[in-house]
Amino acid sequence: MAVVVQNIERADQAVIDRLAAAGVATVHEAQGRKGLLASYMRPIYPGARLAASAVTISAPPGDNWMLHVAIEQLRPGDILLLAPTSPSEDGYFGDLLATSAMARGCRGLIIDAGVRDIADLTEMKFPVWSKAVFAQGTVKETLGSVNVPVVCAGASVRPGDVIVADDDGVCVVLREEAEAVADKAEARIALEEEKRRRLAAGELGLDIYAMRERLAEKGLKYI
Amino acid sequence: MAVVVQNIERADQAVIDRLAAAGVATVHEAQGRKGLLASYMRPIYPGARLAASAVTISAPPGDNWMLHVAIEQLRPGDILLLAPTSPSEDGYFGDLLATSAMARGCRGLIIDAGVRDIADLTEMKFPVWSKAVFAQGTVKETLGSVNVPVVCAGASVRPGDVIVADDDGVCVVLREEAEAVADKAEARIALEEEKRRRLAAGELGLDIYAMRERLAEKGLKYI
Amino acid sequence: MAVVVQNIERADQAVIDRLAAAGVATVHEAQGRKGLLASYMRPIYPGARLAASAVTISAPPGDNWMLHVAIEQLRPGDILLLAPTSPSEDGYFGDLLATSAMARGCRGLIIDAGVRDIADLTEMKFPVWSKAVFAQGTVKETLGSVNVPVVCAGASVRPGDVIVADDDGVCVVLREEAEAVADKAEARIALEEEKRRRLAAGELGLDIYAMRERLAEKGLKYI
Amino acid sequence: MAVVVQNIERADQAVIDRLAAAGVATVHEAQGRKGLLASYMRPIYPGARLAASAVTISAPPGDNWMLHVAIEQLRPGDILLLAPTSPSEDGYFGDLLATSAMARGCRGLIIDAGVRDIADLTEMKFPVWSKAVFAQGTVKETLGSVNVPVVCAGASVRPGDVIVADDDGVCVVLREEAEAVADKAEARIALEEEKRRRLAAGELGLDIYAMRERLAEKGLKYI
Amino acid sequence: MAVVVQNIERADQAVIDRLAAAGVATVHEAQGRKGLLASYMRPIYPGARLAASAVTISAPPGDNWMLHVAIEQLRPGDILLLAPTSPSEDGYFGDLLATSAMARGCRGLIIDAGVRDIADLTEMKFPVWSKAVFAQGTVKETLGSVNVPVVCAGASVRPGDVIVADDDGVCVVLREEAEAVADKAEARIALEEEKRRRLAAGELGLDIYAMRERLAEKGLKYI
Amino acid sequence: MAVVVQNIERADQAVIDRLAAAGVATVHEAQGRKGLLASYMRPIYPGARLAASAVTISAPPGDNWMLHVAIEQLRPGDILLLAPTSPSEDGYFGDLLATSAMARGCRGLIIDAGVRDIADLTEMKFPVWSKAVFAQGTVKETLGSVNVPVVCAGASVRPGDVIVADDDGVCVVLREEAEAVADKAEARIALEEEKRRRLAAGELGLDIYAMRERLAEKGLKYI
Repeated sequence: MAVVVQNIERADQAVIDRLAAAGVATVHEAQGRKGLLASYMRPIYPGARLAASAVTISAPPGDNWMLHVAIEQLRPGDILLLAPTSPSEDGYFGDLLATSAMARGCRGLIIDAGVRDIADLTEMKFPVWSKAVFAQGTVKETLGSVNVPVVCAGASVRPGDVIVADDDGVCVVLREEAEAVADKAEARIALEEEKRRRLAAGELGLDIYAMRERLAEKGLKYI
Repeated sequence: MAVVVQNIERADQAVIDRLAAAGVATVHEAQGRKGLLASYMRPIYPGARLAASAVTISAPPGDNWMLHVAIEQLRPGDILLLAPTSPSEDGYFGDLLATSAMARGCRGLIIDAGVRDIADLTEMKFPVWSKAVFAQGTVKETLGSVNVPVVCAGASVRPGDVIVADDDGVCVVLREEAEAVADKAEARIALEEEKRRRLAAGELGLDIYAMRERLAEKGLKYI
Repeated sequence: MAVVVQNIERADQAVIDRLAAAGVATVHEAQGRKGLLASYMRPIYPGARLAASAVTISAPPGDNWMLHVAIEQLRPGDILLLAPTSPSEDGYFGDLLATSAMARGCRGLIIDAGVRDIADLTEMKFPVWSKAVFAQGTVKETLGSVNVPVVCAGASVRPGDVIVADDDGVCVVLREEAEAVADKAEARIALEEEKRRRLAAGELGLDIYAMRERLAEKGLKYI
Repeated sequence: MAVVVQNIERADQAVIDRLAAAGVATVHEAQGRKGLLASYMRPIYPGARLAASAVTISAPPGDNWMLHVAIEQLRPGDILLLAPTSPSEDGYFGDLLATSAMARGCRGLIIDAGVRDIADLTEMKFPVWSKAVFAQGTVKETLGSVNVPVVCAGASVRPGDVIVADDDGVCVVLREEAEAVADKAEARIALEEEKRRRLAAGELGLDIYAMRERLAEKGLKYI
Repeated sequence: MAVVVQNIERADQAVIDRLAAAGVATVHEAQGRKGLLASYMRPIYPGARLAASAVTISAPPGDNWMLHVAIEQLRPGDILLLAPTSPSEDGYFGDLLATSAMARGCRGLIIDAGVRDIADLTEMKFPVWSKAVFAQGTVKETLGSVNVPVVCAGASVRPGDVIVADDDGVCVVLREEAEAVADKAEARIALEEEKRRRLAAGELGLDIYAMRERLAEKGLKYI
Repeated sequence: MAVVVQNIERADQAVIDRLAAAGVATVHEAQGRKGLLASYMRPIYPGARLAASAVTISAPPGDNWMLHVAIEQLRPGDILLLAPTSPSEDGYFGDLLATSAMARGCRGLIIDAGVRDIADLTEMKFPVWSKAVFAQGTVKETLGSVNVPVVCAGASVRPGDVIVADDDGVCVVLREEAEAVADKAEARIALEEEKRRRLAAGELGLDIYAMRERLAEKGLKYI
């Protein structure tokens, strides 16, 4: 059952970068409001924004052995994504693993569990989105798998899917849909720019989006 | 059932400003320790402090249509306050709505649900106190009401009541009690100043507040 | 039942300082992964790191009377640690108590409940690790005890035990084990330095820790 | 601030009994989906269903003194409803208080906190809907109020409002709307009876409610 | 985006029945400890045990329209499984929908949200495993999809996969693995029978599983 | 670090039985309201009530190896009590382990984690108080300890301490205080009997406990 898939397909780097520029909220809308991880996934420091190909890890509770295995599978620009097989807040990852991952070109970590050494990680500018911050260490006793499909914080993620993460949270984009989503996201941004200008000038959404008639039809009463 | 109340009474702006200066913890004490919203209501960035009149919104879960309706009801200096009719973490509000609200003079948002685009909102200096940060968008399908009484994060809020919010959380002051509460809050601050000076000099609360005798009466033993 | 123990033993200050330098994650590993408080204990601002002897408080829910009693028992370099006798998020502690505690040389507060006035505490550089931020005040009606053993956020703490706290959370070290733990923590740090250098140079943990053979034995398959 | 309001108005008993017969889910729908307490309010045993006039209690955390005061205010057929002024799971209520309340004709208890002696309460057939079961006792040190408006588990409740409770949870009906709600609830039940018969016979809701056209208009595709 | 997939493949009924006989804990072990839904999914009454093919529903928060659509897609022996697109506790399902579903041969409901009318559902013997019991109703305004892959309570489920549910919770078995899992589950049960007999006679697991040597090797000390 | 302490002291069986008769709420009051485990510890079926000497287990997350070790240390009348070293909901214990434990005279299990096979355990009348019901299995890879002091669900427990458990939850009594606590508990029960009789006859707690004067002194107003 415990496997390491060594060759995974990744989306085009230019597409990944376009998704990073769009950010989580826009990407999520652009792909039809799917793929969002649970709201408890929070960044360890504000201001990070990235997109990257996921190297996925299915790990036992309180056992970070597979992180060492996964780091070997990283290519520059990838992100690690770990889902425990049962709920855990243990601190699977700290500054040593981050040093190793950064040396392999890793962009960050998404972990549905705990992380530690966050003062160091912040200083290293290694971004992590996690369920918890917890110094509780882990063991290296039980196998898991690397680059298999996982469910992470309520979202289904396959190896090579694109992870977009920023202060709003984390979103996964199917690898094969990445380009289309980037197109739609950029279209949204273009549209929003005009709306933002009109809203900033004091026009109302009620008028810009022509909502008044539909509100009246549904029965809204002004009193 | 779905109504928009267009004319609401507000407290005097000078009184509102005095409540802002006092801050949540002092105002809460000054009004007899009532009106506090639940502790899960946290600011999206530290350092904001304000007081403002509430434009209230009762909204369906995952539906932000009424926010567009409410923005038209804002007067400069108001704050939006949204309570969903059932628990929700959805991101009802982002940078476009904030742009629109700011153009109408809105001071911020209190929302017993989620918010998104928080990097932008932070840069815009539009403060939000929310239950969650979540990029999950909403629809515009079902009516709610604007400027009706709501229960928000465990506190009862009527339109025009004064909301005080800072890093400690959020407190509601009844409009008709606002002036009396401001008076009491300022009296507390004056009293505290003297106590702070004495405590900083090393005097003990046990002595300043004359607690030793009552502690002994209740049976406290030193060993 | 309500007692104040006035003379407690403390660890050697030099040892305490060595534990502060090591930090929570390293100390926790060094003492065999025990003594960690629950992950919900979070600092009110990032960047604080300290170690100090605990003056413990067992307090009723929503009653902060014993904090005044405990402050008299502080010696310079101590930390206050409060465990309520039943779950509470009330704000037991604010800027006045912090002013008083700082005047007695107190380093900070660990509280399995709420804290308030956090903007002031942040400005005063008085660090607090708490379960909640909540402006809800407390009363002074019921006795508790000072300097008795308590369970705080899931960890057993005796008066005079050493508390280590930083951005990763809070850990307790038994007073009589403090020196041995400091020795082991420093040994770990020395070892880690070499590993960090090798990992930064691109060597893999799989090789540094000689994991490949054991992974194969356990049945890990590369595909 | 601490008051006991001695004379409160109650709804007509016949109306209250009609609401009991309708049950929580139907009453909630009938009054426009409002007034529901949070889903964490669960009965201590299955099968109880009742409606009664609320004698409300605002109590400090971990202090059940006001329950003794409230029991004197009960009239036969009333229900006690307690909201703590800050979150608490303490066991405010057990078999002795239930014995006293039953002797005054009390129908049950709604408590946004803890309850204990639930084996006895179950045997006595005294129903309780609570946030927690917890043997942690309380003190009698601090005043609260009886028969004042409270927010209980997220719902606003005034003394004399009608509480409907069953296995689905708890709902509050405004005293002055009780009769109209009972009428609407009974109308719903009558309508549902016919629908239930048709659904049981295998007809589809899609056809009974004529949904197919609207689904198609909204864009639902069958594939 | 909103689709109804009308023809889904199902596992063989005899295999499904064998999985029901094995129960959740055994099936979960037999398939390599995967596929378990989160522990918050609890049955509305004790004692139900079943296995069935999933008709899946992806529904907006607080909107149960798609349940009506899904019921038409049921075949006798199926189970409904609903995952909201964002977290919700609303009561999507009650006795009328259960009446309709039972008329179509439905075995039960798995819902990562709320359910209501549970006294009626219990009497009807219609089992439901849910995240919450909540009388809060829903609307019929927004489309979702039927028979698409979903993530439900942390587990990935495709239409036609086999759901096994009992008092221990809920587990999903991939349709194409159902027969192999049933084989392994029955093999486990046969093995366990012999172990149960020996354990009941007082033999120790330490001896039956020959653990003593490995424990000593790992360093366990008896003192 | 991993040890099994083989000979522990236990309280007198007659005393233990007296504590069982008194029940959790009374025992907790009788010993000065201490020793209660968190309210999330719930029984898998209603109606069980027991007291027993604790055989304690400190176990890694998701690893139940030490349960096998602990069962050998049981004497008739003991109870198993497991605390994981970091938070876990995994199902450490099921019907096979219960069969083995019962064969050694074990009375039940207290576990700050998950349990499974609860339909079987209910039928076997093997009571369990747990944090969760979860079919997620565990491994046998990492050592823990047996009969060492632990913190379980927020309470400190030493091997041989007396555990009292019923529908209200779980309480620990220090072995050396067990007899004194049993005496006090019985005295409380005797006192309560008279009070119950008077309350059942309609006398008020306000009068029986002479509360009226003190309420007036504190400032309670009747209006």
